[in-house]
Amino acid sequence: ERPILTPSFPRRPVQKAELVRLSQTLLHVPALHWVVVEDAAAPSALVGGVLAASGVSFTHLSAETPPDLRGGPGAPSWLFPRGAEQRNRALRWLRDTRGAHEPGVVYFADDDNTYSLRLFEEMRSTRGVSVWPVGLVGGCAWSGRWSRGGVVGFHTGWRPERPFPLDMAGFAVALRLLLAHPRARFDPRAERGFLESSFLGGLVTPGQLEPRADNCTQVLVWHTRTEKPKLRQEEQLQRQGRGSDPDIEV
Amino acid sequence: ERPILTPSFPRRPVQKAELVRLSQTLLHVPALHWVVVEDAAAPSALVGGVLAASGVSFTHLSAETPPDLRGGPGAPSWLFPRGAEQRNRALRWLRDTRGAHEPGVVYFADDDNTYSLRLFEEMRSTRGVSVWPVGLVGGCAWSGRWSRGGVVGFHTGWRPERPFPLDMAGFAVALRLLLAHPRARFDPRAERGFLESSFLGGLVTPGQLEPRADNCTQVLVWHTRTEKPKLRQEEQLQRQGRGSDPDIEV
Ligand SMILES: O=c1ccn([C@@H]2O[C@H](COP(=O)(O)OP(=O)(O)O)[C@@H](O)[C@H]2O)c(=O)[nH]1
Ligand SMILES: O=c1ccn([C@@H]2O[C@H](COP(=O)(O)OP(=O)(O)O)[C@@H](O)[C@H]2O)c(=O)[nH]1
Ligand SMILES: [Mn+2]
Ligand SMILES: [Mn+2]
Repeated sequence: ERPILTPSFPRRPVQKAELVRLSQTLLHVPALHWVVVEDAAAPSALVGGVLAASGVSFTHLSAETPPDLRGGPGAPSWLFPRGAEQRNRALRWLRDTRGAHEPGVVYFADDDNTYSLRLFEEMRSTRGVSVWPVGLVGGCAWSGRWSRGGVVGFHTGWRPERPFPLDMAGFAVALRLLLAHPRARFDPRAERGFLESSFLGGLVTPGQLEPRADNCTQVLVWHTRTEKPKLRQEEQLQRQGRGSDPDIEV
Repeated sequence: ERPILTPSFPRRPVQKAELVRLSQTLLHVPALHWVVVEDAAAPSALVGGVLAASGVSFTHLSAETPPDLRGGPGAPSWLFPRGAEQRNRALRWLRDTRGAHEPGVVYFADDDNTYSLRLFEEMRSTRGVSVWPVGLVGGCAWSGRWSRGGVVGFHTGWRPERPFPLDMAGFAVALRLLLAHPRARFDPRAERGFLESSFLGGLVTPGQLEPRADNCTQVLVWHTRTEKPKLRQEEQLQRQGRGSDPDIEV
């Protein structure tokens, strides 16, 4: 079984579109179970509707980011890690529902990235923690582990001294390893770029990472982001009493 | 058969990711043929590789936007219509290869939008030109045709007086109708927002549009856009001779 854990942030106007698109990718993957954790006090009907219509096996949860871990209105998006609370909620669900020796591979799939189908093949053979490069991340064409003539390093545009200079999309974890370390979790107060390290440090050492994707030479996942749409015209039409029908879900 | 026509612009660093993602959507749709027209002098190996690996039935073409129809470096993206040359090239391919009475429905699918699978069901029954709302377009929550008590109108944030105030993603055309009008094409010099009208005006009148998606009350396609990634760190590392391995395709 491959549990795929996705945090989903309700305040984005593109939330439904992103989940519809991601569900179409996951629908191609055999033996997958999708755990979607909304950053909200309770699971919403909008997300529930997308999941139910998707054809993907799923669990729908919620966990709200506490106010003190969310920057104020003007705060930059990188002030606190995003999705930490939600991924921890999904980890708890796995620990509550899965037996210690169940096979399986866990992957953290943000709602806005692009995943090739081959990526899900590559992660199947994960014994501990497997890794591969991530495209278009951290200001680089790609970022991840490399090796040349026995020497191993990480290509990254951000704080190369991090214990695990990896993006969230760049690794998968064997379910058994995860369940053997009941305290491994994401630190919601981790410094910028250290969220992945806060979790992986509780599971393995950097030397134990298992390269995949042809020894980390193939980009099979891209850290794409969706533009925030401007709704200026809508606001203007609404002031004129000619806004779009609010009964139509977008 | 459902020919799906997609212009693809090579200069975006996200081109491969967008095509991979779109191919996963289209792979779910039966009886589909994907015509991808690159905005380039010749079809590229990168796009050819994505198409060949996708599992989707496809044709790979190219048509370069002429320099006088491409704004200069500082020009705003809306100065000229985007993708006109490429869609016209795909229309020519259909006219060259399809018999006048072949059944089928033609749809123009930009590489960056999000398409629900239900959309492809809805367009199957198109006799002339069918229409539905498009989410997150033109500064509005959604835009498209509406009707209430026999009155028909269009909700749009841009030039409501346009003959067809529709987005490219908001309509499909019966192949027979298209082939019966051999001169219908996109005007690459159309004024901002009038590209769809330049094509549809050669095929139907606004009154003939066939509403789909529960009489145009369901949003089944979203005009999403992918953020252009910043590659600042990459440029900096390259200056230090530590750039990412250029042999790794992104
Ligand atoms: O306040 C937030 C912001 C983001 N997210 C989710 O956390 C993940 C990472 O966020 P985002 O994609 O915005 O981060 P970035 O693209 O900057 O890495 C995504 O699945 C979001 O839906 C969340 O749950 N709460
Ligand atoms: O110079 C260009 C710019 C865009 N496109 C393609 O034309 C379509 C529409 O472009 P875009 O998505 O940038 O337009 P918008 O989102 O602003 O409607 C897309 O499939 C692009 O890949 C193109 O062929 N040449
Ligand atoms: Mn993201
Ligand atoms: Mn677009």
